[in-house]
Amino acid sequence: MKRDPSKLFTYNVEDVHEAIEVYLGEKLGVEAGYLALGRSRNDHVAAALRLKVSRLLIEEGWELLKLRRILLVKALEHRETPMVLYTHTQPAQISTLAHYLLYVDELIATYLELLPSIISVTLRSPLGSGPAAGVSTPIDRVRIASKLFNGGIVYNSLYATTSRDFALLALAFNASLLASLSRVVEDLILLSTPQIGYFSIPEEHLATSSIMPHKRNPVTLEITRARIAELLASFVAVAGIIKGLTSGYNLDMQEANRHAIEPLVKTVEALRILGDLLSRLGVNVENVVRDVKAYPIALSDLAELIAIRTGRPFREVHREIAGLIKESKGVEEVYKVLEEKYGVRLDYRSVIRRPVVGSSNPEDVDRYVEKAYDSLRSLEGALERYSYITGRRCSH
Amino acid sequence: MKRDPSKLFTYNVEDVHEAIEVYLGEKLGVEAGYLALGRSRNDHVAAALRLKVSRLLIEEGWELLKLRRILLVKALEHRETPMVLYTHTQPAQISTLAHYLLYVDELIATYLELLPSIISVTLRSPLGSGPAAGVSTPIDRVRIASKLFNGGIVYNSLYATTSRDFALLALAFNASLLASLSRVVEDLILLSTPQIGYFSIPEEHLATSSIMPHKRNPVTLEITRARIAELLASFVAVAGIIKGLTSGYNLDMQEANRHAIEPLVKTVEALRILGDLLSRLGVNVENVVRDVKAYPIALSDLAELIAIRTGRPFREVHREIAGLIKESKGVEEVYKVLEEKYGVRLDYRSVIRRPVVGSSNPEDVDRYVEKAYDSLRSLEGALERYSYITGRRCSH
Amino acid sequence: MKRDPSKLFTYNVEDVHEAIEVYLGEKLGVEAGYLALGRSRNDHVAAALRLKVSRLLIEEGWELLKLRRILLVKALEHRETPMVLYTHTQPAQISTLAHYLLYVDELIATYLELLPSIISVTLRSPLGSGPAAGVSTPIDRVRIASKLFNGGIVYNSLYATTSRDFALLALAFNASLLASLSRVVEDLILLSTPQIGYFSIPEEHLATSSIMPHKRNPVTLEITRARIAELLASFVAVAGIIKGLTSGYNLDMQEANRHAIEPLVKTVEALRILGDLLSRLGVNVENVVRDVKAYPIALSDLAELIAIRTGRPFREVHREIAGLIKESKGVEEVYKVLEEKYGVRLDYRSVIRRPVVGSSNPEDVDRYVEKAYDSLRSLEGALERYSYITGRRCSH
Amino acid sequence: MKRDPSKLFTYNVEDVHEAIEVYLGEKLGVEAGYLALGRSRNDHVAAALRLKVSRLLIEEGWELLKLRRILLVKALEHRETPMVLYTHTQPAQISTLAHYLLYVDELIATYLELLPSIISVTLRSPLGSGPAAGVSTPIDRVRIASKLFNGGIVYNSLYATTSRDFALLALAFNASLLASLSRVVEDLILLSTPQIGYFSIPEEHLATSSIMPHKRNPVTLEITRARIAELLASFVAVAGIIKGLTSGYNLDMQEANRHAIEPLVKTVEALRILGDLLSRLGVNVENVVRDVKAYPIALSDLAELIAIRTGRPFREVHREIAGLIKESKGVEEVYKVLEEKYGVRLDYRSVIRRPVVGSSNPEDVDRYVEKAYDSLRSLEGALERYSYITGRRCSH
Repeated sequence: MKRDPSKLFTYNVEDVHEAIEVYLGEKLGVEAGYLALGRSRNDHVAAALRLKVSRLLIEEGWELLKLRRILLVKALEHRETPMVLYTHTQPAQISTLAHYLLYVDELIATYLELLPSIISVTLRSPLGSGPAAGVSTPIDRVRIASKLFNGGIVYNSLYATTSRDFALLALAFNASLLASLSRVVEDLILLSTPQIGYFSIPEEHLATSSIMPHKRNPVTLEITRARIAELLASFVAVAGIIKGLTSGYNLDMQEANRHAIEPLVKTVEALRILGDLLSRLGVNVENVVRDVKAYPIALSDLAELIAIRTGRPFREVHREIAGLIKESKGVEEVYKVLEEKYGVRLDYRSVIRRPVVGSSNPEDVDRYVEKAYDSLRSLEGALERYSYITGRRCSH
Repeated sequence: MKRDPSKLFTYNVEDVHEAIEVYLGEKLGVEAGYLALGRSRNDHVAAALRLKVSRLLIEEGWELLKLRRILLVKALEHRETPMVLYTHTQPAQISTLAHYLLYVDELIATYLELLPSIISVTLRSPLGSGPAAGVSTPIDRVRIASKLFNGGIVYNSLYATTSRDFALLALAFNASLLASLSRVVEDLILLSTPQIGYFSIPEEHLATSSIMPHKRNPVTLEITRARIAELLASFVAVAGIIKGLTSGYNLDMQEANRHAIEPLVKTVEALRILGDLLSRLGVNVENVVRDVKAYPIALSDLAELIAIRTGRPFREVHREIAGLIKESKGVEEVYKVLEEKYGVRLDYRSVIRRPVVGSSNPEDVDRYVEKAYDSLRSLEGALERYSYITGRRCSH
Repeated sequence: MKRDPSKLFTYNVEDVHEAIEVYLGEKLGVEAGYLALGRSRNDHVAAALRLKVSRLLIEEGWELLKLRRILLVKALEHRETPMVLYTHTQPAQISTLAHYLLYVDELIATYLELLPSIISVTLRSPLGSGPAAGVSTPIDRVRIASKLFNGGIVYNSLYATTSRDFALLALAFNASLLASLSRVVEDLILLSTPQIGYFSIPEEHLATSSIMPHKRNPVTLEITRARIAELLASFVAVAGIIKGLTSGYNLDMQEANRHAIEPLVKTVEALRILGDLLSRLGVNVENVVRDVKAYPIALSDLAELIAIRTGRPFREVHREIAGLIKESKGVEEVYKVLEEKYGVRLDYRSVIRRPVVGSSNPEDVDRYVEKAYDSLRSLEGALERYSYITGRRCSH
Repeated sequence: MKRDPSKLFTYNVEDVHEAIEVYLGEKLGVEAGYLALGRSRNDHVAAALRLKVSRLLIEEGWELLKLRRILLVKALEHRETPMVLYTHTQPAQISTLAHYLLYVDELIATYLELLPSIISVTLRSPLGSGPAAGVSTPIDRVRIASKLFNGGIVYNSLYATTSRDFALLALAFNASLLASLSRVVEDLILLSTPQIGYFSIPEEHLATSSIMPHKRNPVTLEITRARIAELLASFVAVAGIIKGLTSGYNLDMQEANRHAIEPLVKTVEALRILGDLLSRLGVNVENVVRDVKAYPIALSDLAELIAIRTGRPFREVHREIAGLIKESKGVEEVYKVLEEKYGVRLDYRSVIRRPVVGSSNPEDVDRYVEKAYDSLRSLEGALERYSYITGRRCSH
């Protein structure tokens, strides 16, 4: 039956709960009638949904950890690789690719920090709550919860049968995460357009055209970008369905189930695809260097350096450089004048060595990565506690 | 200036950051030009928003704790007060008012469990991150964060200036919470309609009509019910604004600010109003008793009791009672027959003593409340750590 | 092939467009290569989606017309059947069931008024628009559109391949409609709870319980209520997917398709179910009369009548009645005093004969229904023009 | 009073309706008490909101017409200006700027086609509907509606006081419109990045930096891009508030008002800003020409032309060209080979003369623009009918 449950779908009954009772009736006769004691569809439906959402969140945790490992490895490779950071979709400051990748890592780490507590409020057993008020059969709810739910229970029986908070929280968490990751996706699409070309999207993630060989349609990124809107929509669906229902089970809640599960499945998939793409992302340093030279994106740093070196107020130095730009013909001329006058130069290798934590400074990158690995190991430990459900263990 | 910042709004400048520099320029002359060194609007805007959201979340934490205290006190008062639980907006099972109130308490407790970790990822300093890539001025970001942010920093400078994750998470958390609480609001509205009348909404929460004295319009509940839709909308607004932006500051993000702050202010207010209403909610036991007698809402419990007492399969007993109902004229007749045959009776005092944890059993209620107070104290301790920001301390 | 397209799914190709070309290649050899001339997936995908959405909107139009006919027939049956109208979920004014039903009719009529223009902007052909800029093959786009699209075209080829406005509009229209109809659903659920009991939901729309025979779970209404949240979510999904894409086809748009079609299919189904339920809705006049007597819901009308009869300022009369209520023991006493003093009485038959159009006055109901039938016939004519697509003709 | 209503806000009353009565009481004494006869806050609130939304929609209509005029004038200027159309954020096909601008025009024209019917269902009077069931005072609702509502009424009094459909429809319409326009905004941002540089955003729409003169932050576009998310959120707010309320006035509806008005005000403003930007948009033809030469974006058109000229199956020609690309070193070599072999050439002037309607063909552009002006005049006529409300007349 466990291997092939198709028989259950051949009965003319209302749902799977009834089907199991009919099946057992065929096998056991009248004895099957003991099954329904101390149970209700309302607590069983909630139990199944809580287990499913928990598994998906744990799966997601492993995927996020994998993504972080990819980012950290890649960051160490690109400690000194130049990168242009953008604000307002315009080149803004010189940095390193490592610095950019660690931005993505901290984004993911922030969500990973919250994930265990969301799993913890989800993986709790509603079994034994009956239709709403509990059951009159003396059962040990904690013992029933021991295997699948690690002993955790939703305490109050009305809360256990009524609440879909865990689904709302799982969707909200992921809608927030993907909204933020959609910006990384947008970066990858923009920075791999042929005119900018910092990145080459790996072939497996492109749909190409035989007649238009320059077309490198970033189709997996596009699909991933669509996911955020879908997750947001799922959250709206479930919150909208729940809103204003009276407490206790209402059949509206059945319609919420598919909005809770499918989007989480797709999120895990999206994270896997993004990880694969990042692990094979091509970097075209020459295009980055082209822009480092073309746009005066080192000037704000140079103004700071000059202000510090000369002890003059920053705003004064700033105004001087602004004037200089107005009078000169190009970026190179400005740099040359500043070098002659103040002995500072546009050397991206020195500019990126900013003297603050969390900047592009390669030594700072090293320190961050080291700490990050520690935190990864501790998160892996946390997720391994759930291997009894997922069968998944850390391979590192 | 701190007391009356109105002067800042008289300058013809772009924003408050520039205004402060102009103001200092008037006071200090050219020296004011030192101010801008190692700073950017991008990190300052993020810092202000993080502080504001943190404060509101801490304020909310206190309000939720207050609400829990109201519920726990009220629950102990109503350990044995009968209550009808509903499913599908239909009377379903006998319970106690304490059991209903503790459902609401566990709902709030679940969110309170998650709140500290959300505050923790919010109250981190982005100061010193410059426009995107960090600054070239050697500043100690952790030290700058020591006073307002308790020493916590958003590490990566690009993440610090780009991310609005904390706002998304705060809104998502609250949209989930209010979606769930909207069901309690709906219960209160339904169960205080004149035809049902279990509850009397306190006068201060009603708009009455001199000519229609029966009209007891539950206006504060209606406003609270509207809040969930508004919070959900705010989350859609911020997630929608963020979605698909390139990383780094974009002015779109400025428009997200009001959707992040105002709804949180209103949520805190809504929780305060709900707490006040619950603390003074009138209970009309006679109307509950009327329904306990009118509808056969004890039968599923009786079926369990008979099955256990007789050792017969539950389904068999169930079928017998169903047949009995068909043949008899009313609830009372069924109860009488069952009493004669099996010695079980509809005595709500015995039915509510269900032998499982998390049910309406008054002794179980006592145990829950005791543990709840412990958890309240520990949460209050957690929030008091932030009294340096809010000035708020526990008064219990 | 048209009857059994399963073969198309056996090819190892990217999509159905390619599959058709491969299939034709097998049948026709190299000649099949002519097929791709002057075509692109981008215009074909848009064409298929526009056709599908158009069909569903036309189908919906017929369903809404059917619903209106049900409401009009039912309204004429219940011209004088008393009904209590609610505000703030509290009994507020005496009316008739006809008046209530015609509220629902006007709601639907308002949307039906807009539907033809939405179908009209949808049923336009993008064929011949190529990938974005049009094709270099001299084809007659209007002629190609003549059969399926009635000759209408989306003019600009970039607009034709880029735009999903028609899907957004169809979802927005339906999300608005269902949000409004959800209130009617809520009325039906509330007014059929056992304590109020104005309506009896037909058996086919209930899930009952053998052991709890009073439980009449209004499951089809609950599912319908969930649909509004789902439609709203679909609109969020499609608008969110579209938002901020660059113009021209992007693969994100593929993900929008299912959010555009499935919810419309479900909406048509929901309308059909609601129509069936309304056509068989039971009315328990005795329960309505019970509330007409129990609550002073005629007093505001009586105050108006007295003010007019006596020529005194309304506010003065109002104050007098309010005082009277305070002093008296119940509704009946107030009515009696007013009758003695002013010769007006609570006779719901006279109160409902309000002297304004659009009120509960049975003669006004007759006039409305007559006009409504005229408008129905004209709308049916409009929809019949599309019978070449749907094969559906008016049967009245 | 009309000129300075501030006095109304000094009374200690519940709302503006009461305040007016108090004010009149001060002026007229007891006679003011006649005012309340035949009126209710419920119909007055609906009337005020309908008027406000109608005005904003009419205002929006004028703004959209202005935007179309700007686009049409600009299109005629740029009938032959080359433009690269994109799909998947990648250069895809050669076209003209006129063709691109007319895409935007048709987008707006589609919405303008629907606008009058939405105004028509909005500008209807609910006055005389009382609290829900109508009034007992014999008033002529159509006559009362004659001045402000042009004689149109919401017929059914319950519908008149309950419904916020007009607000939902106005928001849904605009959320759809702005979602689509957000793509044009995204195009403008992308195509004005320094590396692509087809467009120059006018100075007034940029925030520049004195020290980073290359930074041309497109701030008005960014704000406009944020608006779509806000409008979508407003629709979610109002639909969410309305969802599941019982019919009749509920105070939740008061909270919907601000979500209905403010976003429409902002939309009108956003359209005005976009119009201004487009009217002064700079075009850098040299950058477009650079890309026309760099990327093989004429090849799909050339394949069509060769297929037609040679009579060979398109797919065969397509394959031949694909092979050619593989073997050759660059775009120019391919073009040269094709020219020698087939006598076709990459001459953007001939490629844009595609032989289909709705393409980039300048003669087709002329035809479209001519018809567009006709339609503009008729739409202006339609909007002028409302000049009695807005005082606005067509100036053309």
